[in-house]
Amino acid sequence: MNKKGVLIVISGFSGVGKGTVVKKLVEKHGYSLSVSATTRQPRPGEVDGKDYHFKSVAEFRNLIDYNGFIEWAQYVENYYGTPRQYVEEELEKGNNVILEIEVQGAMRIKEQYPDAVLIFLTAPNAQILKTRLEGRGTEDNKVIAKRLKRAYEETDDMQCYDYLVVNDDLDTCVEHVHAVILAEGFKTAENMEYISNMKEELSRIRKEITV
Amino acid sequence: MNKKGVLIVISGFSGVGKGTVVKKLVEKHGYSLSVSATTRQPRPGEVDGKDYHFKSVAEFRNLIDYNGFIEWAQYVENYYGTPRQYVEEELEKGNNVILEIEVQGAMRIKEQYPDAVLIFLTAPNAQILKTRLEGRGTEDNKVIAKRLKRAYEETDDMQCYDYLVVNDDLDTCVEHVHAVILAEGFKTAENMEYISNMKEELSRIRKEITV
Repeated sequence: MNKKGVLIVISGFSGVGKGTVVKKLVEKHGYSLSVSATTRQPRPGEVDGKDYHFKSVAEFRNLIDYNGFIEWAQYVENYYGTPRQYVEEELEKGNNVILEIEVQGAMRIKEQYPDAVLIFLTAPNAQILKTRLEGRGTEDNKVIAKRLKRAYEETDDMQCYDYLVVNDDLDTCVEHVHAVILAEGFKTAENMEYISNMKEELSRIRKEITV
Repeated sequence: MNKKGVLIVISGFSGVGKGTVVKKLVEKHGYSLSVSATTRQPRPGEVDGKDYHFKSVAEFRNLIDYNGFIEWAQYVENYYGTPRQYVEEELEKGNNVILEIEVQGAMRIKEQYPDAVLIFLTAPNAQILKTRLEGRGTEDNKVIAKRLKRAYEETDDMQCYDYLVVNDDLDTCVEHVHAVILAEGFKTAENMEYISNMKEELSRIRKEITV
C-alpha cells in the first residue's frame, strides 16, 4: 500500500498544549512538520527555519504573488503563511505532514486539500482549560478571560474538524492523534489500488494451482 | 466523553489470521467478543459458550422467531447466528464489541447498525495468502484452489468495508485494528454532546473571572 502522505491539520484551544503534542509526534513518529513563514520579528531564542521562516514584507508579498503559500493571513501588522513547496514535496514522497494552524487557516486548507485530516485538540473540560491557562502564571485575568472568550467562540468551529482529541495525559494524547492518522491510511477509499492489484494477482495465482 | 460502545465487524480472507487477531484484541485491549450460536455439532475440544453457543435446531428456530439474532444464516445444513442480547447489552455499557463474521453477515449488520465499523483483514499480497494457506499443511490443492477462488470473489466485497488492515506482522496488525477503533471514537460526529457541554461550561466559567 504505497501512496501519498496524509496532510494533518492540528488546531486547538489556547493552553491545550498543541505545540508539545506536535513536537512529540515529530520526535516519536517521524511526522514532517511544516514551518510557517512570518514577517514578524524573531523573539529571543527563535531560530530562522526552525521556529519560523522569517521574511521581509517584500519577500512575503512576492511569495503570495507567486502562489508560494497554501494559506496565508495578516494579523495585526504581520503576515503568516504556510509554504506550499515543503508541504507538497513531503506529501509526494509519502510522508505525513503536520500543520499547526488556527481555525480560519484550517478551513482554507480543507478547501484546497479535501483529503486533509483536521484534528482539534481540546481539554477534558473547561475548568481544566482555565486551570492550565492560569498555571502558566504569566498571564493576568484579562488575558485569561480573553482566551476563554475565544475558546467559547471556537466551540462553534469544532464541528468543522474531522476529529476531536482530548489532551489529558500528554503521551496518551500523542498516541491518540497517531491512531487517527494511522486509521486514515486504512480507509478503504484510500486503498482502491491495493484492491484491484489483489484481485488481479488472485485471478492469476489461483489458475496456477494444479488440482 | 462517555458514550455507547463501538460495534466492530471483522471479516477477511480465509488464511489471513482473523481468529488470532481477534483473540489478541480481546486479551490485550479488553474488547468484548460476541460468541456465535450454531446448530452444528461441537468438534473435539470446543467449549459451549466459548467457541460457540451450541443449540438444537428447535432452539435456534425459536430464537429466530423471537428476534434473538441480529443476523443469522444457514450453511449446508447448519444454522449460525449472532445473539442480539449480548451485543446490545455490551454496547449499552459502553464496551466495544467484536464480531468475527463473513461478508454477507457483515452487510446485514451494517444495515441494522449504520455506526458499526467494518474492517476487512487482508494479506500483504496474494502470493503470501497462498503461502499461508499451503503452510497449514492440512489442505490439499483442491481446497486451496477453492479458498483462493473465494478470496478472488471477496475482493469485490472489500469496498463495502470501512477499513482494510493488512496482517503482515500479528502484533502490528492488532495495533492497527485498535487504532482504527480508537479513531472512530474521536470522530467529531461522535462527540457533539461533548462540544455542547464544553460551550455551556466555557460560557459560564469565563463570566466568573474578575477583570
